[in-house]
Amino acid sequence: MSDQEQGYFTEENSAEVVISRNANAKNERLAEVMAVVTKHLHAAVKEIEPTQEEWFEAIQFLTKVGHACNDWRQEFILLSDSLGVSMLVDAINNRKPSGASESTVLGPFHVEDAPELPMGADICLDQKGEPMLVRGRITGTDGQPIANAKIDVWQANDEGFYDVQQKGLQPDFNLRGVFRTGADGTYHFKGVKPKYYPIPDDGPVGQMLTQLGRHPYRPAHLHYILEADGFDTLITHIFDPDDPYIHSDAVFGVKESLLAKFDLIEDPARISAAGFDRPYYEVVHDFVLAPKS
Amino acid sequence: MSDQEQGYFTEENSAEVVISRNANAKNERLAEVMAVVTKHLHAAVKEIEPTQEEWFEAIQFLTKVGHACNDWRQEFILLSDSLGVSMLVDAINNRKPSGASESTVLGPFHVEDAPELPMGADICLDQKGEPMLVRGRITGTDGQPIANAKIDVWQANDEGFYDVQQKGLQPDFNLRGVFRTGADGTYHFKGVKPKYYPIPDDGPVGQMLTQLGRHPYRPAHLHYILEADGFDTLITHIFDPDDPYIHSDAVFGVKESLLAKFDLIEDPARISAAGFDRPYYEVVHDFVLAPKS
Repeated sequence: MSDQEQGYFTEENSAEVVISRNANAKNERLAEVMAVVTKHLHAAVKEIEPTQEEWFEAIQFLTKVGHACNDWRQEFILLSDSLGVSMLVDAINNRKPSGASESTVLGPFHVEDAPELPMGADICLDQKGEPMLVRGRITGTDGQPIANAKIDVWQANDEGFYDVQQKGLQPDFNLRGVFRTGADGTYHFKGVKPKYYPIPDDGPVGQMLTQLGRHPYRPAHLHYILEADGFDTLITHIFDPDDPYIHSDAVFGVKESLLAKFDLIEDPARISAAGFDRPYYEVVHDFVLAPKS
Repeated sequence: MSDQEQGYFTEENSAEVVISRNANAKNERLAEVMAVVTKHLHAAVKEIEPTQEEWFEAIQFLTKVGHACNDWRQEFILLSDSLGVSMLVDAINNRKPSGASESTVLGPFHVEDAPELPMGADICLDQKGEPMLVRGRITGTDGQPIANAKIDVWQANDEGFYDVQQKGLQPDFNLRGVFRTGADGTYHFKGVKPKYYPIPDDGPVGQMLTQLGRHPYRPAHLHYILEADGFDTLITHIFDPDDPYIHSDAVFGVKESLLAKFDLIEDPARISAAGFDRPYYEVVHDFVLAPKS
């Protein structure tokens, strides 16, 4: 239908009229996306029936979110995270075959150039926090161990901060490491027991969470990226199931299958065998990679 | 349902889990609004199935829109306008009783302190463009003339710019005036025949319109705010039905009932009677105000 044939905008036909304007779009995918966005946006406005003042508050909120974005902070990603959109996009793009380990959000604190370390190394460079040993095995969905899998791990320190958030206060690459599996597909490394921490909550998204009666905390977790030839890359976390925020992750990243177990080991023989000088937490978590899709 | 009872986030239950977090909201209206926003946002994402790259393009687009906002430019309002949301909010907030004149968007170019002028005055202060006489009558839905109605009018010049867009190039308050009706409810004033003009299209919203195959033009129009004791304030335009963009207003502001008629008057007697020295356009448009709701 041409612009001329299409009637004028009314409350009833609003979305259809707006969508019909994209008939000659140069970017077909954008037109397809904007048709869906327009349909749901108009449906939401019709359901909410905002006053002019409320509409303007929404405009001002989005403007503040935009103004809070800079080279080191992405408030729109925080908004997407805190409304579950980032996790939803992650879920849509990572539907795994039965038996494969599940993904969760990458988060903003991964760095590309973390050092490759010998298997078993301690990624904690500042000797703070409660010691932890993490170990497990990486297999395919066929149960076979995966050799030469690249394991990129990173975590916040005992105070809930990543090294990049505390430049100068933490050693560079503190609590980051890259490991490679041998023939048996096993991995192990040392770190510190992670703590819950808030997403940055001093901006408009934090204000929104407060108004909604929500806290900004993410339960304690370790990040993993697992890569191996012939397998889909897996971006995921493992979580501490005893964390006070395990049922209310501010970014909805927790999945049942990502709950690990953090066992406090107090047996002197095991402490000594693990190379620690005091009780430590041991976490055993295996991963199953899906064959390349 | 408490956080503990609520299950973890999945692709299927995503919106429900996010909405359930607002159970203890301090701001109930915000929680109500965000429940609807979350429901439609998740439904849109599920329908679109964006790749991670497309999701990030959306994040970057919104960030650019935010960064384009400053004291004199509101790119999120432009986005709302160009997706028909501003008109939809206007429609929802201005459902008029049968027979009353319809509203349309205020737009960003109204100024509060335009001068009150004697009825019949010429609001064109720079003698540019084709002369125009606008006249009509303001009544209630009962057909009775409304005395002492305040008529606040403003328009772009012959080049499609408002005075506030060309500070120093146009006289202050060029093409703006406030008039008050007498006992018979009639009004008349002089101006210039308006021209179509683009919404600001040098930012991310303009880029979006280009990708969607849309032009940025608004068809020629005059703005009105009509206020009178005992009646709802009416914010509206009248449009030139012969404008090339009358069927494709970039902000969807046109309504059938807002089409005026711009008659070219070439009869020397009428030219002289109207106080012009050359042919002019005459526009006759009546308004009907709704009783205060």
